[in-house]
Amino acid sequence: MSNVGMRTLFHLALSPQSRLVRLVLGEKRMEAHLRAEPIWDRREEFLAINPAGEVPVLVEDDGTTIAGATPIAEYLEEVCPEPPLLHGDPAERAEIRRLVAWFDRKFDREVTELLVGEKVLKRFLGIGEPSSEAIRAGHANILIHLDYIGWLAERRAWLAGDRFSLADVAAATHLSCVDYLGDVPWERNAEAKDWYARVKSRPSFRPLLADHVSGLRPAKHYADLDF
Amino acid sequence: MSNVGMRTLFHLALSPQSRLVRLVLGEKRMEAHLRAEPIWDRREEFLAINPAGEVPVLVEDDGTTIAGATPIAEYLEEVCPEPPLLHGDPAERAEIRRLVAWFDRKFDREVTELLVGEKVLKRFLGIGEPSSEAIRAGHANILIHLDYIGWLAERRAWLAGDRFSLADVAAATHLSCVDYLGDVPWERNAEAKDWYARVKSRPSFRPLLADHVSGLRPAKHYADLDF
Repeated sequence: MSNVGMRTLFHLALSPQSRLVRLVLGEKRMEAHLRAEPIWDRREEFLAINPAGEVPVLVEDDGTTIAGATPIAEYLEEVCPEPPLLHGDPAERAEIRRLVAWFDRKFDREVTELLVGEKVLKRFLGIGEPSSEAIRAGHANILIHLDYIGWLAERRAWLAGDRFSLADVAAATHLSCVDYLGDVPWERNAEAKDWYARVKSRPSFRPLLADHVSGLRPAKHYADLDF
Repeated sequence: MSNVGMRTLFHLALSPQSRLVRLVLGEKRMEAHLRAEPIWDRREEFLAINPAGEVPVLVEDDGTTIAGATPIAEYLEEVCPEPPLLHGDPAERAEIRRLVAWFDRKFDREVTELLVGEKVLKRFLGIGEPSSEAIRAGHANILIHLDYIGWLAERRAWLAGDRFSLADVAAATHLSCVDYLGDVPWERNAEAKDWYARVKSRPSFRPLLADHVSGLRPAKHYADLDF
């Protein structure tokens, strides 16, 4: 590794799981060298680090390696508890983790994979054209998810309760990838839009808004805080 | 709820995620009233408890509700730390969590969904016949996963290190559901088989081996500790 003495994050710009780790690092003001990993190349060196062949992977300067968004987030919370992103008593932490799992699994499967996966990842993987059926399903499913976010945001200051938490990070990073493609119908739910505007304006979010994937221009309003 | 003063776990017998929670409860000697939830009926009362409509869901006697296998496992570890299933320093805990995520996501997608999902869940959901293509893929994928388990078990006492952990629980519960169908080719990897025999003989595993899904007889060797 060329960056001795520095934490390295193997990531991809439009991977919500990678973005989740970048946001956690940003919130905790921890630095890391970002290294884009073209997972479709299945580099042997990278597979030796993470046999799952997926990003994100965090490598500490002592060689400690942590793979997967949730394991990395839990790890960072343990080594750097302030500011907390998994706060409260066990029941409050469980509610945060429930919502993280909701976005990491359900939103991922019902929206992100069908839109970002079809339109972006499939191209890099070279596994054919986007399926218009999948994209249609993704567009339909996102409406339900926006309404659920709006429902939560109407009842709570942040998605899991009174404080900004890993639940907001998970939700916002998935939405931000879909938003890069211009596929979030913000007019659908004013509460969800207002919540996203609040996350988007956090300093930790700024680097995500500066992302540019080669050959794929972000939607016009993507980096606009007043969208 | 009829069982006042008692923890309730909404579950399904062949859901590996539900089994994970049952094993964690068993290891920690915590009691819970098990309630089979036919998620395909989408009962309104259940959707009010968990809008994702999925099992497992744990309801404490004070009404605290926790949804999702990993959130429940993390919660149980916090309220009942002994015996620990997420032990060690942050890096060791990260390795346990990496493997839990491996089975919860990768094994689930590449094996469990293609075998248990196609053969069992599809029938209950009434969404058509099992896809023979999916089942073929599941049979091919499980070989790679057995080899990975064997590779880990050859190098470590348990999958994540020196001690039995949530990683062993996650791996064994997925395998146990596939094994109910008789679809684990144990002859493939002796180390993986030996590791599974050790998990299978734990007292916490016994209730899982007694499971019988109506209309679906378990494979002959399913409950056999000397398979």
